[in-house]
Amino acid sequence: MRFFMNDYGMGAHPAVLDALAKANDGLYSGYGTDGHSRRAAGLIRGLCAADGADVHFLMGGTQTNLAAIAAFLRPHEAVIAPASGHINVHETGAIEAAGHKILAAAPDGGKLGPEQVRSLYVSCTDEHMVKPRLVFISQPTECGTMYSLAELRSLRGVCDELGLLLYIDGARLAVALTAEANDASLPDIAGLADAFYIGGTKNGLMFGEVLVIVNEALKADFRYIMKQRGAMMAKGFLIGLQFCAVLENGLYFEIAAQANRQARKLQGGLARLGVEFAFRSVTNQLFPIFDNSMIAELEAGFDFERWSDAGGGKGVIRFVTTWRTLDGDIYELLARVAELQAARAAGRK
Amino acid sequence: MRFFMNDYGMGAHPAVLDALAKANDGLYSGYGTDGHSRRAAGLIRGLCAADGADVHFLMGGTQTNLAAIAAFLRPHEAVIAPASGHINVHETGAIEAAGHKILAAAPDGGKLGPEQVRSLYVSCTDEHMVKPRLVFISQPTECGTMYSLAELRSLRGVCDELGLLLYIDGARLAVALTAEANDASLPDIAGLADAFYIGGTKNGLMFGEVLVIVNEALKADFRYIMKQRGAMMAKGFLIGLQFCAVLENGLYFEIAAQANRQARKLQGGLARLGVEFAFRSVTNQLFPIFDNSMIAELEAGFDFERWSDAGGGKGVIRFVTTWRTLDGDIYELLARVAELQAARAAGRK
Amino acid sequence: MRFFMNDYGMGAHPAVLDALAKANDGLYSGYGTDGHSRRAAGLIRGLCAADGADVHFLMGGTQTNLAAIAAFLRPHEAVIAPASGHINVHETGAIEAAGHKILAAAPDGGKLGPEQVRSLYVSCTDEHMVKPRLVFISQPTECGTMYSLAELRSLRGVCDELGLLLYIDGARLAVALTAEANDASLPDIAGLADAFYIGGTKNGLMFGEVLVIVNEALKADFRYIMKQRGAMMAKGFLIGLQFCAVLENGLYFEIAAQANRQARKLQGGLARLGVEFAFRSVTNQLFPIFDNSMIAELEAGFDFERWSDAGGGKGVIRFVTTWRTLDGDIYELLARVAELQAARAAGRK
Amino acid sequence: MRFFMNDYGMGAHPAVLDALAKANDGLYSGYGTDGHSRRAAGLIRGLCAADGADVHFLMGGTQTNLAAIAAFLRPHEAVIAPASGHINVHETGAIEAAGHKILAAAPDGGKLGPEQVRSLYVSCTDEHMVKPRLVFISQPTECGTMYSLAELRSLRGVCDELGLLLYIDGARLAVALTAEANDASLPDIAGLADAFYIGGTKNGLMFGEVLVIVNEALKADFRYIMKQRGAMMAKGFLIGLQFCAVLENGLYFEIAAQANRQARKLQGGLARLGVEFAFRSVTNQLFPIFDNSMIAELEAGFDFERWSDAGGGKGVIRFVTTWRTLDGDIYELLARVAELQAARAAGRK
Repeated sequence: MRFFMNDYGMGAHPAVLDALAKANDGLYSGYGTDGHSRRAAGLIRGLCAADGADVHFLMGGTQTNLAAIAAFLRPHEAVIAPASGHINVHETGAIEAAGHKILAAAPDGGKLGPEQVRSLYVSCTDEHMVKPRLVFISQPTECGTMYSLAELRSLRGVCDELGLLLYIDGARLAVALTAEANDASLPDIAGLADAFYIGGTKNGLMFGEVLVIVNEALKADFRYIMKQRGAMMAKGFLIGLQFCAVLENGLYFEIAAQANRQARKLQGGLARLGVEFAFRSVTNQLFPIFDNSMIAELEAGFDFERWSDAGGGKGVIRFVTTWRTLDGDIYELLARVAELQAARAAGRK
Repeated sequence: MRFFMNDYGMGAHPAVLDALAKANDGLYSGYGTDGHSRRAAGLIRGLCAADGADVHFLMGGTQTNLAAIAAFLRPHEAVIAPASGHINVHETGAIEAAGHKILAAAPDGGKLGPEQVRSLYVSCTDEHMVKPRLVFISQPTECGTMYSLAELRSLRGVCDELGLLLYIDGARLAVALTAEANDASLPDIAGLADAFYIGGTKNGLMFGEVLVIVNEALKADFRYIMKQRGAMMAKGFLIGLQFCAVLENGLYFEIAAQANRQARKLQGGLARLGVEFAFRSVTNQLFPIFDNSMIAELEAGFDFERWSDAGGGKGVIRFVTTWRTLDGDIYELLARVAELQAARAAGRK
Repeated sequence: MRFFMNDYGMGAHPAVLDALAKANDGLYSGYGTDGHSRRAAGLIRGLCAADGADVHFLMGGTQTNLAAIAAFLRPHEAVIAPASGHINVHETGAIEAAGHKILAAAPDGGKLGPEQVRSLYVSCTDEHMVKPRLVFISQPTECGTMYSLAELRSLRGVCDELGLLLYIDGARLAVALTAEANDASLPDIAGLADAFYIGGTKNGLMFGEVLVIVNEALKADFRYIMKQRGAMMAKGFLIGLQFCAVLENGLYFEIAAQANRQARKLQGGLARLGVEFAFRSVTNQLFPIFDNSMIAELEAGFDFERWSDAGGGKGVIRFVTTWRTLDGDIYELLARVAELQAARAAGRK
Repeated sequence: MRFFMNDYGMGAHPAVLDALAKANDGLYSGYGTDGHSRRAAGLIRGLCAADGADVHFLMGGTQTNLAAIAAFLRPHEAVIAPASGHINVHETGAIEAAGHKILAAAPDGGKLGPEQVRSLYVSCTDEHMVKPRLVFISQPTECGTMYSLAELRSLRGVCDELGLLLYIDGARLAVALTAEANDASLPDIAGLADAFYIGGTKNGLMFGEVLVIVNEALKADFRYIMKQRGAMMAKGFLIGLQFCAVLENGLYFEIAAQANRQARKLQGGLARLGVEFAFRSVTNQLFPIFDNSMIAELEAGFDFERWSDAGGGKGVIRFVTTWRTLDGDIYELLARVAELQAARAAGRK
């Protein structure tokens, strides 16, 4: 089976594993108060050009989004998010379980526009309705698409105008930052968001995410909320040291760049075969559309996820590439698609 | 000012006030454990033909919906509701504050259909998504429309098929039950819903709603949840006795029937003037569409609510009639609309 | 049956009932935005000598405590309260259901001292523990006792020193303000508390409590929280007008003064019979200790609550007096106690 | 610095690190649905002699307690726990943030007795109070003490009698199971508890805890709650494989046995020096009492935690031993204590 299922169904990059092994004999103060974590925090502040930012290390994406939003909002305050946003679909109602409504904008390739933000904001007219307070976006989106710097600035603009916070889920931020199409740097992100997170789990770490809180007003007591939500790791040094291992040498970006390169190869190949896509991905997730019968045949040799029904006997599936995706796997997949297409063409004659 | 603002901007029906005065000198056991409450519960079980139902008295609609849903669901379980449902729009996120996501179906005159329920249900495929468990509808809807008995049965059918609970918000149930168009009796409602509430505040009481829990599995410990949510009135006898005052003699239904009669007069008059409506109301809330300039002129003499923008310089407003709405108020409103229409017609020449 | 059960098992003072009847024909804007509510708010600001305070009208005590604390605290912040505090015992965990831990000090006649506050505060040393933020006290306490002005000032002092909020549950504030022993006026209370509530339900109203928010930092968006917790009454004018009816003429204080007078008569009579008390009440709740057998015999003729086991075959019960308690009821109760004592004395010979 | 600070300030046992390295090249299905996790679950069911138990893998103790209790209780249901219980002190109010009150029994060496359970249970008399539903204990306790099999059985007895669930926090279960004093086997624990967890983080794993749900009624939908609380690891196979690495060969128990052996050496040595202890530990946490000045001097050479004030110029500190604690560290610590004692004795002459 060739693996295009996701970017977390595997161990860590060898350099990360080495770092873990090397640090294994040390003794560390607990809960992220150790030297590795401090060093990693410093690296991240540097890369973000955000000297005053608070940096926290958490174990996974859902718990990062949950802890951040629980910390930032009062009970009646709500989140504005794209309907396809991870918190709106794939976190089992974690945000609502923390007490907050999500106002979801109709999806458009996973991206949220300033007019959608404004429209949801003005629809909440008084105290009988929730009060929108935080705009949630993902960079890149759950559809593989990405915000340009201009788009991020216009979202920041509407947030400033309406008194909203801008929060960016960066589970896959690395593939955005290293995408060919990208023009928003890490300092840009840090300069525009009130808080955001930089994902590790899906970019070569064993586990770990970094929450960066830029807005001074959001910093107070965040470690209390982390602990309360079960998101403060006893052996917190493990996250700090992993981030050190990939940030000190640019490896973090190389891992992502390789995932993107493999995605472009696969995307280009599929396009040449006439395959259509549900979204115009520029990162490591591709969403091709195939006949359902072809999807079933592909499943015999390839691991991937069925994403959604596309109507008319077709379906959207998801191929994810990673730093570990081999050229050979891609060629085999393309060859198989071509073969199945040919068989169908022959059958139609 | 003629009052078409709502059905709660006023005191109680005189018979309710009399009953409160008469009972004022008594002494009662607290928190709804008194004789009036027991008597009212018996009356309600009788009217519902639901001998085994549990009956609870609460102070308002939001707290009734909140306490019921908090009592009925586990943390990961979600509500399916029409987008225009009261819990989704006008309760300041009370259900989310109790931890539960609302999956909202695109609005269609305020009503939810079985296919919308099924579609939202099947979109939740695994433990990364919330688990739909309760279908929330309002009878009549927030748009003045109503479910037929056949429609309620088909919702019950899809609930049975999918293992969902059916909950009915009956803030204005009285005007539904007494609408000309109605074919779903109180025993029908009680036979189809797992739980529902019968509104008093908007139908002539000073305050008070009755939650009826039919499904045995939902009954346990509801009084704990009421108390915990601040929804158990110390002087609970006040609610029981008000319901006795209107249920023992059919007054509850006469109050609603009169509100409906006045709505039909106003609706007919407006229709004859060529006014269009956003929804086909069959109860006591009407949603006519006027030019924005005309809305502003109407506001000089009439109290009503602006509901939504209708585009093209037009707006939807809401007229609500009650047992206290005078024929004279209706005629004056119709005359004023005709006058404003004539002025506009003259202006266009 | 003579009624010493509580101060809410009855209707309203006749003047309140009259006011409700008189206002019944009016038309009002909803949710406490009406003229009665504005007038009542003005009266309360005046009586409190707190021109800038925010004044909100709610339906009951549990929902007032719940809405206030939910509005004032962040998720990791905790309440310090006496173990006997209403929120710690008799609100079915409403505060915890809103997410906040209560740190309870060992009870001492229901009162909390500054050293207990300090001790609980310093026991919370870091982010692995909750962060104390609000001190909850009741004036008078649930034991009938009361804080002196000096005691309130010393609590305020420790709150200022430690950065804590002071919140006062005033469900029975009227009997405190009118107690002989009292030296803390309403302006004193308003000057010392960050927020407090003035109870109506237990002092002659049909229902209603007034939350007064003095601290500017706690005011924002409170109406959102009220609505979200189901604590915003549709016919809010009903609460405002009831408070007007008792505050415009001093009746509010006369009702309480009479409850206190009757309590002193009963307390003095019991003391003369050698009855001991669990707490030194100075308000309208008395907690005498009797043999369990005598309690059972008293229950045949008098309504009261069994409070707690006192050990050694004895129990604590609660007698509550109100503006409606008749001298005859008190004399009858004292005579019955004397009679039962005599029978026991005779039996022992 | 010699390290007696805790049992999580270090990496993993070498065998665990090896297993992680060996598995690093594999590809796995996500979120604990992989083969390692299944194999680990099988091993655990076998060791517990609980074929039908549900086994879940989580990342840390607080999130395990939180997810379990959130899954098991309805909103008005409360936990009975010893005052020193981890959930009551060191989880930043996580249980309350999930909505549940903790009724804490006065501490007695960290252990809860059946009479304390009964007493708290009967103190909750009606729906104005929370409803106790789950008894939380830790084995071993946070004080290093332990329940005997007879004590566990008597707790089970009172739970059965009162309709309560028994939940055991086993963050350090391994040192309990391997303590000399122990007579409660893993099958005993599984036979007595409704649910419990087996800790990995504090016993040689990099991270990971195993929740075992024995009671059929508590099993439904637990994975939803895990995900919602941010406690479902994307690379869940990492936990499963670590548990395999220590359970297949008994290493899990050897790690703990070694920690206990070192604790007994240190405890014996201190006792011989006349040092007194706050609790009679039988596991790997010791709580000696020293003069505060001596504590300060010890801190110069040894890492440990200050636990609590003992009055009279003395303090309780905590020494924790692990599989990595060297004999040399222990001897050095004992020698230093003796030396400081001697200096004090000389000073007093």
